[in-house]
Amino acid sequence: MKAAIFRGKNAIEIGQRPDPQIQNPTDAIVRVVRGCVCGSDLWYYRGINPHAVGSIGHEYIGVIEAVGPDVRDLAAGDFVIAPFTYNDGTCPACRHGYQSNCVHGGAFGNGETDGGQGEKVRAPFADATLVKVPNAPEGGFTEAQLASFTALSDVACTGYHAAVSAGVKPGDTVAVVGDGAVGLSAVMGAKKPGATRIIALSRNPARQVVAKEFGATDIVEERGEDAVETVLRLTDGAGVDAALECVGTDQSIETCAGITRAGGMIGAVGVPLYEHFEYKTLFWKNIGIKGGVAPARQYIPELLEDVLAGHLNPGLVFDYSTDLDRVADAYAAMDERRAIKSLLTISQP
Amino acid sequence: MKAAIFRGKNAIEIGQRPDPQIQNPTDAIVRVVRGCVCGSDLWYYRGINPHAVGSIGHEYIGVIEAVGPDVRDLAAGDFVIAPFTYNDGTCPACRHGYQSNCVHGGAFGNGETDGGQGEKVRAPFADATLVKVPNAPEGGFTEAQLASFTALSDVACTGYHAAVSAGVKPGDTVAVVGDGAVGLSAVMGAKKPGATRIIALSRNPARQVVAKEFGATDIVEERGEDAVETVLRLTDGAGVDAALECVGTDQSIETCAGITRAGGMIGAVGVPLYEHFEYKTLFWKNIGIKGGVAPARQYIPELLEDVLAGHLNPGLVFDYSTDLDRVADAYAAMDERRAIKSLLTISQP
Repeated sequence: MKAAIFRGKNAIEIGQRPDPQIQNPTDAIVRVVRGCVCGSDLWYYRGINPHAVGSIGHEYIGVIEAVGPDVRDLAAGDFVIAPFTYNDGTCPACRHGYQSNCVHGGAFGNGETDGGQGEKVRAPFADATLVKVPNAPEGGFTEAQLASFTALSDVACTGYHAAVSAGVKPGDTVAVVGDGAVGLSAVMGAKKPGATRIIALSRNPARQVVAKEFGATDIVEERGEDAVETVLRLTDGAGVDAALECVGTDQSIETCAGITRAGGMIGAVGVPLYEHFEYKTLFWKNIGIKGGVAPARQYIPELLEDVLAGHLNPGLVFDYSTDLDRVADAYAAMDERRAIKSLLTISQP
Repeated sequence: MKAAIFRGKNAIEIGQRPDPQIQNPTDAIVRVVRGCVCGSDLWYYRGINPHAVGSIGHEYIGVIEAVGPDVRDLAAGDFVIAPFTYNDGTCPACRHGYQSNCVHGGAFGNGETDGGQGEKVRAPFADATLVKVPNAPEGGFTEAQLASFTALSDVACTGYHAAVSAGVKPGDTVAVVGDGAVGLSAVMGAKKPGATRIIALSRNPARQVVAKEFGATDIVEERGEDAVETVLRLTDGAGVDAALECVGTDQSIETCAGITRAGGMIGAVGVPLYEHFEYKTLFWKNIGIKGGVAPARQYIPELLEDVLAGHLNPGLVFDYSTDLDRVADAYAAMDERRAIKSLLTISQP
């Protein structure tokens, strides 16, 4: 089959990988319909984080082609959303709703396992991992719906995880640090539990538009200490109930620490690249911090319901679309900041 | 008036300070009935943390002698519990229930302001700071009740703050790292919201007795990596829902990180002396951390209700009692680990 192959820094190309086969009785084989490029893929592409040579891409939706003999809830022909990590559904972490920490779990597209930027994927623990999309309407799902389903694979859930981890509740004032696809999704994630004021930090006009579409009530264009000053001024000196950290740099987490009120929370989903940040600094303000790799499997069903009901449109983060053959361009568009996030059309449902 | 004076490392002595006077219209003057020695006082005494020469002690209960003209809710003769920090009750931090972060607040007994280890204290923002103990029974409160009221001034609230910050809820499994007075109080603090399993880490038989009295269901005597192994074994490999960090060293916080389940919380109240701990390590397990200087003023009313109803006995942490003249011995008893916590009888109600 055709699949994107990561060759090293700035080198993504289309290559061939063996068609995936059922290896364990709980596996399913999924024909990929849409995939996409993640901000974390971009960090591999830029050589900031290491990635093994081989398969890449961890976000996909598709149609089941075959299932192993122990798969009970899914069958060939089912249309599914894959969370970006697979999980057994039975370990203590899974039972607590943290499937991304499953002791038998793992990631798609890590060089070895098939990725979402390819024609097919073997999905382990299919019943526990994949989420079936019910009731395709006559004529099939719209392009916008397919984009939103693809966003549920990672980015929408990761943004929502920031808000959930920070315990955002009705009436809260929330600030989102980071205006990438995750940050924009975090704006949406803060609105869902009922934040009434959502301050998005962004100086990019196109991203500001999406942030507002997702529920941002205020835009702050400053960065660093200036941003802290502005957010404090906007909140009468108190600071926000929750700051959602969607970048992972020292500057972004220090901004979060500076704008959160005494007793508030930081919801952290930016992959931590910070080197100087110490928890101690939060202690003296009674600020808490929680987050990590999002348990997308936990969130997909509830967010999917909102998407199918037309209440959420997480696919708006995709502002660039191409096909698998042009996957290198999908990366380049994000790398050159021509795109917030690139969608890949790999096959039709 | 007579008051303990901090002179430097290992030097606490009885000396004289001017009788406190009403300085601001919201002040009250409190005649101290009971004071005590805090674990943090011991750190000053040992020269681990710096403390100004002068007044010391931040925990006290007493009887109001005089109030300024703007004090409305309190009057001379009222019996009160002081939280270990004073607060204005109106700033954003106070309004959110984090009075220990009051922008106009401060600490008692910091060298300048009067401390709880002395005959009298000037309490700023008296209405907002002090909590009146209602309805003294005929014959007055018992010694055990006076000890429990004194514990509410800091240690009981600090232990409870660990549990509140970690979001402990009914049915939770909680581990408490640290068996000092704060750790023991954290056991009590975990039981209050309904933790059903409370694992206390302690190798001291006398402290184990108090831990069990406060609700510990399991005692773990190991430390460091051995403790992690034992707690994981006790929880079927999953780890605890919440770990309460009541020490503040690298070893204790790393133990907390090792025993908390994916998605669990660390409630941190040990004054952070750790130097190597990084939040990043928690991110990968989706573990959160929250805590800080306890807003005792927020918790005293509800804990006081439990004490008056006979449901809580936080004064059990005091296993040594002396008078103000022997304050140096009160410190030495804790320093030499002859005492968990020393109570000071300063006057009678």
